[in-house]
Amino acid sequence: MTVSITREAIRAAAQRIAPHVRHTPLLRLTGAELGLGQDVTLKLELLQASGSFKPRGAFNRMLSAPLPAAGVIAASGGNHGAAVAYAARALGIAAEIFVPEITGAAKRARIEGYGARLVVGGEAYDAARQASEARAAETGALMVHAYDQAEVLAGQGTVGLEFEAEAPGLTDVLVATGGGGLIGGMAAWYAGSGTRVISVEPEGCPALHAALRAGRPVPAPVGGVASDSLGARQVGAVMFPIAARHVAQAVLVPDAAIRAAQRLLWEAARLVAEPGGAAALAALLCGAYAPPPGARVGVLVCGGNTDPAGVA
Amino acid sequence: MTVSITREAIRAAAQRIAPHVRHTPLLRLTGAELGLGQDVTLKLELLQASGSFKPRGAFNRMLSAPLPAAGVIAASGGNHGAAVAYAARALGIAAEIFVPEITGAAKRARIEGYGARLVVGGEAYDAARQASEARAAETGALMVHAYDQAEVLAGQGTVGLEFEAEAPGLTDVLVATGGGGLIGGMAAWYAGSGTRVISVEPEGCPALHAALRAGRPVPAPVGGVASDSLGARQVGAVMFPIAARHVAQAVLVPDAAIRAAQRLLWEAARLVAEPGGAAALAALLCGAYAPPPGARVGVLVCGGNTDPAGVA
Repeated sequence: MTVSITREAIRAAAQRIAPHVRHTPLLRLTGAELGLGQDVTLKLELLQASGSFKPRGAFNRMLSAPLPAAGVIAASGGNHGAAVAYAARALGIAAEIFVPEITGAAKRARIEGYGARLVVGGEAYDAARQASEARAAETGALMVHAYDQAEVLAGQGTVGLEFEAEAPGLTDVLVATGGGGLIGGMAAWYAGSGTRVISVEPEGCPALHAALRAGRPVPAPVGGVASDSLGARQVGAVMFPIAARHVAQAVLVPDAAIRAAQRLLWEAARLVAEPGGAAALAALLCGAYAPPPGARVGVLVCGGNTDPAGVA
Repeated sequence: MTVSITREAIRAAAQRIAPHVRHTPLLRLTGAELGLGQDVTLKLELLQASGSFKPRGAFNRMLSAPLPAAGVIAASGGNHGAAVAYAARALGIAAEIFVPEITGAAKRARIEGYGARLVVGGEAYDAARQASEARAAETGALMVHAYDQAEVLAGQGTVGLEFEAEAPGLTDVLVATGGGGLIGGMAAWYAGSGTRVISVEPEGCPALHAALRAGRPVPAPVGGVASDSLGARQVGAVMFPIAARHVAQAVLVPDAAIRAAQRLLWEAARLVAEPGGAAALAALLCGAYAPPPGARVGVLVCGGNTDPAGVA
């Protein structure tokens, strides 16, 4: 199955979700401030409603289908669950969210704070996904997948649409990858534009890196500091063909670089990024990705759902 | 002495400091998200270099005068000192910063982290100011005042210039007041434009409120959660006539409302504001300022130099 995510689908998603999501701002930091050879334009998607980019895809999925009386259901490391809970509250329907045991207190509190029913169980995201699918079969609730539905990818692609509109001419855009909904949507947006989209994964969660080597989505390990946001066991079927064609490079970063990126964002700009939200910047800091001379570099800071005490 | 701060002076300051400061972004939150009757456009000056708006005035002062071999000297509750230290490092000169004992660890670390000599002493800002003046007389260093110099006001006024350019048509702009450099500069920018500039002070630090009642700057108490950023003993002589003519209203907020605003900024937008940075929003939350029907409201979030553990 190959689903094409067109610029038109992403523009339609942007229009559909506009009343519900924030147009997040940019912040340009100089190479000197970052200890890098070039300036970097950050897109501050951590300031999005619910604390990550995830409401874009969640709203687009929920506004593209009839909503059953049983409401919506989702499995999540936390951010997608918070976004679905947020969207369900906004649209006045019930939500049931399955998370694994690694999901931190900040994310659990968000999900419950938005009024959803929270179910905790299993070691990592994949176990929660299985439990949610069994439950959806029982209740008839609409499944809002964390990354493997076309509407979800088109919604996440609106990050690319905004980024290009406000920072035209970027040559390199770095994006963190978990299950791949975000980078799939962004790579679909930038496809053919000349902008290189670079995937960044933690060494402990290399699902896209492994898939690109294997030529198809394959199971990969799940571990490390960012596993509650980037810890999908394998990338989605919808995103894979897009990534195979339109992701220029898929790099891995060690957890220490992610922690350093979190500290730098706090020191330089008073931004609290969660590990997954800081991973893309980490690739520049540790040299896992070295932009070519003259590059104009954009970095997506995609989430901030963490205990702020941990970043200082 | 009345010093006029013109729009032209503020435009000149903006040009002078442009290579050194960040153009900070806006974020629009809905009334529903904030529990308020209207949407609010935040200007995220807490993302400024050094963690507050203060480098604007510091750079403008330092780039408007010959810099002596002895470097620069400043007294500060912390944010101005961090900004002067940051600017001195950028310009390659020495800085000596005096802070009182109430100045928190995060601010002290920033000042020393930028390579300045830090001198701690006295109960509140005013004691540090006196010590710095005695020291400046000894060394011949250039005094960069925290709020009572025309170049400092013109520099802070560039916040108003940016805010108006990116959010035209605001009817009400709320700004926290300490010694008054920021609101003086912003009121000078907006003077005659039809935009109401509203001063917000903690009940524990009511220097402008007291001055406007007395008809001149008078000593006022210094206390409460925001005293390390808004704790000037009295407002400046340069700002007072500007405030008397061009500040529409000066309101007071309790510390509890400031804490609630900090929590709301974290919950709604993953922003870490220090107490002084959250004070302006607090005035809307607690009703100390109630915008008229149809108002288009802007709020300046002016600083983020605090322990992030305290906001969650």
